[in-house]
Amino acid sequence: MEKGSRNWGFQVKKSINTAAVTFHGVLTALMENLNTDDGRTVVPLGLGDPSVFPCFTTASVAEDAVVHALRSATHNHYPPTVGILPARRAVADYLNRDLPYKLSPDDIYLTLGCIQAIEVAIQVLAHPGANILLPKPGFPYYEARATYCHLEFRHFDLLPDKGWEVDLEAVEALADENTVAMVIINPGNPCGNVFSYQHLKKVAETARKLGILVIADEVYGHLTFGSNSYVPMGVFGSIVPVLTIGSISKRWIVPGWRMGWLVTTDPNGILRDLGIVESFKSYLNISSAPPTFIQGAIPGILENTKDDFFSKINGILREAADMCYDRIGSIPCVSCPRKPEGSMFLMAQLNLSSLEGIIDDMDFCLKLAREESVIVLPGRTECIVLFFMDF
Amino acid sequence: MEKGSRNWGFQVKKSINTAAVTFHGVLTALMENLNTDDGRTVVPLGLGDPSVFPCFTTASVAEDAVVHALRSATHNHYPPTVGILPARRAVADYLNRDLPYKLSPDDIYLTLGCIQAIEVAIQVLAHPGANILLPKPGFPYYEARATYCHLEFRHFDLLPDKGWEVDLEAVEALADENTVAMVIINPGNPCGNVFSYQHLKKVAETARKLGILVIADEVYGHLTFGSNSYVPMGVFGSIVPVLTIGSISKRWIVPGWRMGWLVTTDPNGILRDLGIVESFKSYLNISSAPPTFIQGAIPGILENTKDDFFSKINGILREAADMCYDRIGSIPCVSCPRKPEGSMFLMAQLNLSSLEGIIDDMDFCLKLAREESVIVLPGRTECIVLFFMDF
Repeated sequence: MEKGSRNWGFQVKKSINTAAVTFHGVLTALMENLNTDDGRTVVPLGLGDPSVFPCFTTASVAEDAVVHALRSATHNHYPPTVGILPARRAVADYLNRDLPYKLSPDDIYLTLGCIQAIEVAIQVLAHPGANILLPKPGFPYYEARATYCHLEFRHFDLLPDKGWEVDLEAVEALADENTVAMVIINPGNPCGNVFSYQHLKKVAETARKLGILVIADEVYGHLTFGSNSYVPMGVFGSIVPVLTIGSISKRWIVPGWRMGWLVTTDPNGILRDLGIVESFKSYLNISSAPPTFIQGAIPGILENTKDDFFSKINGILREAADMCYDRIGSIPCVSCPRKPEGSMFLMAQLNLSSLEGIIDDMDFCLKLAREESVIVLPGRTECIVLFFMDF
Repeated sequence: MEKGSRNWGFQVKKSINTAAVTFHGVLTALMENLNTDDGRTVVPLGLGDPSVFPCFTTASVAEDAVVHALRSATHNHYPPTVGILPARRAVADYLNRDLPYKLSPDDIYLTLGCIQAIEVAIQVLAHPGANILLPKPGFPYYEARATYCHLEFRHFDLLPDKGWEVDLEAVEALADENTVAMVIINPGNPCGNVFSYQHLKKVAETARKLGILVIADEVYGHLTFGSNSYVPMGVFGSIVPVLTIGSISKRWIVPGWRMGWLVTTDPNGILRDLGIVESFKSYLNISSAPPTFIQGAIPGILENTKDDFFSKINGILREAADMCYDRIGSIPCVSCPRKPEGSMFLMAQLNLSSLEGIIDDMDFCLKLAREESVIVLPGRTECIVLFFMDF
């Protein structure tokens, strides 16, 4: 070292071990636990990305819309931080098909998939002392982002005996004057359930009573194939302000396009009055928006994709769910409380008392990877998650 | 309100007024100050986006590479959080052309343009009590992001009389034991200067002496047309660890594609030892990566674009810079201390004592917009910035 030079002695912020709390981190741990010596084929029931399966390809109109926007050479400019107007209008129109009132383009913020939409919502709601209520089982990115910005989270259970409905009594017991929001994921990841209209209405009424927002993660919106049809939480926006999170990732089988949205369904203007709308704009002002030409493709994608494309996808999902459910039923020590009715996941219950030497869900998943080269994900103590598209 | 319901009384974090400190915010203020009554054509010399000018179109091989990656249907999957390997390797190879040693793909993190690269660097380096040294004039996003994550910033001057070189004495005077890094932008935004090899070496030696990192913003890399040729800061990576920020936005005229990189040029492994590399990965683990198919196009874009495309772009820039410089010279009360040699901006000096009723740069810009429908940007008290591509 040069004489007189200072050491590299400045303090570096201890990095938060985000891998430990994210889906990617858990999956990596399981993959590393595979026994690669015995030449077995790995059965990967943990990777929630439909685009890697040959039975799934996106709609050709979607691909064409992106190529058209790119080739037009009119979408190479910087995007506005909230997204381009035609794309915001197209998302509003798309969501309005299922709502009792009209969203305007100003209610729509385009984001890099759902991940950035969750980021914006959590970062804006995080303030010292605040807390947020998250479902268990749920999607671990919420916990990871909340941890990063020091937003306390509290878990409420989803109830397997009630088709994975929200334990609303638990929600009431957990909330206090510092609670800012509760999160629901519908169709459910990882439980594969679909909330009924009546249950969603109760969620809205509970949140209203508690004075908290509802963040509705609808990335699996419309991907249903059971008795409950899909109802967007925004339907109840006049009861409680709803932040809806969605994307084209799952319904169009293109998670790698990173195109999503954050939506304020708030006919009473409460989010505006609370300053939350201003905070969203302010946060997006220092963030990166999705590439302009992908935004430019959104009107074509949302308006021109035909129903038979969606029916085909939902048909494949139904078949895969049926097959997975039936086979689980034939395995001792594992059961499935309810056949999946939506999304791409199935939650199975472990009979731990019959499973020798298994402590909990993670232990089961690690040993299954090691001994049988089968990758499934931990759910909660007595439950595991299977991405049933691998069946 | 329903009886017994709580008010929407939870505290909402006061949003930081990011618009006030970002380029977009300033530009919006100027545009709102235009006098739209007199039918004048607006002369927009403030918008730093070359893609909107008809003289600039991207290389057809770049567009083809994106279409090919999209049509292949092999890039619809979720991207790894650090970027896909072929793209990271291609960026390493591209940068290695100008370096005395070899970057590996592990040194490259793909980001959503330079904005996300700056975000990652600043967020990781921010810890309570730390500070960072920023150039003045500079690129206001650094200040905006540092403000958001409570990282103190201190400004050092660029010296107009020395061709906008860094005031290294000021850097030494500003730094203390809590300083983590200094930022340089080369080729310069907004000064249009290009640092010499010797000056960059002195920057490296000063940073080494102070024990701080250098963040080298090279988004305008290779866009030079004067006597100093472009030298990447990474050349001095064995003196001081360098975080290089770059993208295809400017050189390929596609800022809307949002494709950039953050690079560790650190042959002595100091950033790894300090835990900064781990922190980058951890932060990216909870962030959104660029769309997979755009990443998939990167090898084709970087390897197949021909020199004549670059020569043509630089030729247009040289011509525009010359014309702008000459015309500024014929305007009383305004002068240009140095003809631009790189980037797309020119910094002009105001003779405030001869300008009646003008307080400072922002005042001049607001009145010029109002009275003459000409948009230029504030630089510092006695300087304004012109995006010379509008000439």
